[in-house]
Amino acid sequence: MDAAELEPPTPTVDDAMLCSIERSLVVLGERWSPLILRELHYGNHRFSEIRDRLGIASNLLSRRLQALTAAGVIEQVAYQEPGSRSRLRYELTPSGRDALVILGALQQWGDRHAPRPDGPSVLRRHRTTDDELHVAFVTDAGIAVPLDDVRMIAASTVA
Amino acid sequence: MDAAELEPPTPTVDDAMLCSIERSLVVLGERWSPLILRELHYGNHRFSEIRDRLGIASNLLSRRLQALTAAGVIEQVAYQEPGSRSRLRYELTPSGRDALVILGALQQWGDRHAPRPDGPSVLRRHRTTDDELHVAFVTDAGIAVPLDDVRMIAASTVA
Repeated sequence: MDAAELEPPTPTVDDAMLCSIERSLVVLGERWSPLILRELHYGNHRFSEIRDRLGIASNLLSRRLQALTAAGVIEQVAYQEPGSRSRLRYELTPSGRDALVILGALQQWGDRHAPRPDGPSVLRRHRTTDDELHVAFVTDAGIAVPLDDVRMIAASTVA
Repeated sequence: MDAAELEPPTPTVDDAMLCSIERSLVVLGERWSPLILRELHYGNHRFSEIRDRLGIASNLLSRRLQALTAAGVIEQVAYQEPGSRSRLRYELTPSGRDALVILGALQQWGDRHAPRPDGPSVLRRHRTTDDELHVAFVTDAGIAVPLDDVRMIAASTVA
């Protein structure tokens, strides 16, 4: 039996878990989950498409999709093509769409620090201007700040 | 035996692995690795500090630190306090510091979509202005763009 089979099907976020990084990882960090979200962001919504593109076993994919659905990150939507029976496809919810920032951050890091010989397979571009995009820390006003200016502080120390 | 014990100690990035998301996850995505990087970003550099704060078994932490060192994300640095023997601490390398964007993205998502009842435990602030910071897609000019304007495209389709 694959070690993954032993995992509970629906991850739950324990209220005692203080850190949002940890809380996100419970929902999104299981093996395959980021890659499933990537496929949905790329526009691949059908079970068979996702399965074939990832080379993942059907039962494992089912379980991951159930967990992501239970976590509210994706949802099943019925659709029907002319002359065909109704089928189900998976769509990102607003929280699943928000996860694009995480995927973009992972992708950018990989492009820089674990690059493949042929260069990045996927580019981040602005939909209308076609500008290259990066993932960065920004102020409320939407201005990027250098990493050296970023400080992580415990909320308990702030008045 | 814990399932984690079966994992190879040093993850390797296969050149055939096309996607930078996947390539990043090989290096950073193993269970505990993001939390170890979080501790280093928070300024906790000693083995015993990290072990005690995460509640992780010593042998597992050793293996994760070895893997992150082999991947070039952290390094061991000797230090000596007056009157003490020389000791080792772990420091982030430039690629480990770059991972702060990933941690920030995970944290922000958790703050919004898996919030804890008491609010976020950690805040992202500008070091000098104390402005609240977010993680977002930005242009080359450092201007944030809304998620709806972000497009992921296959590099092979770009001339």
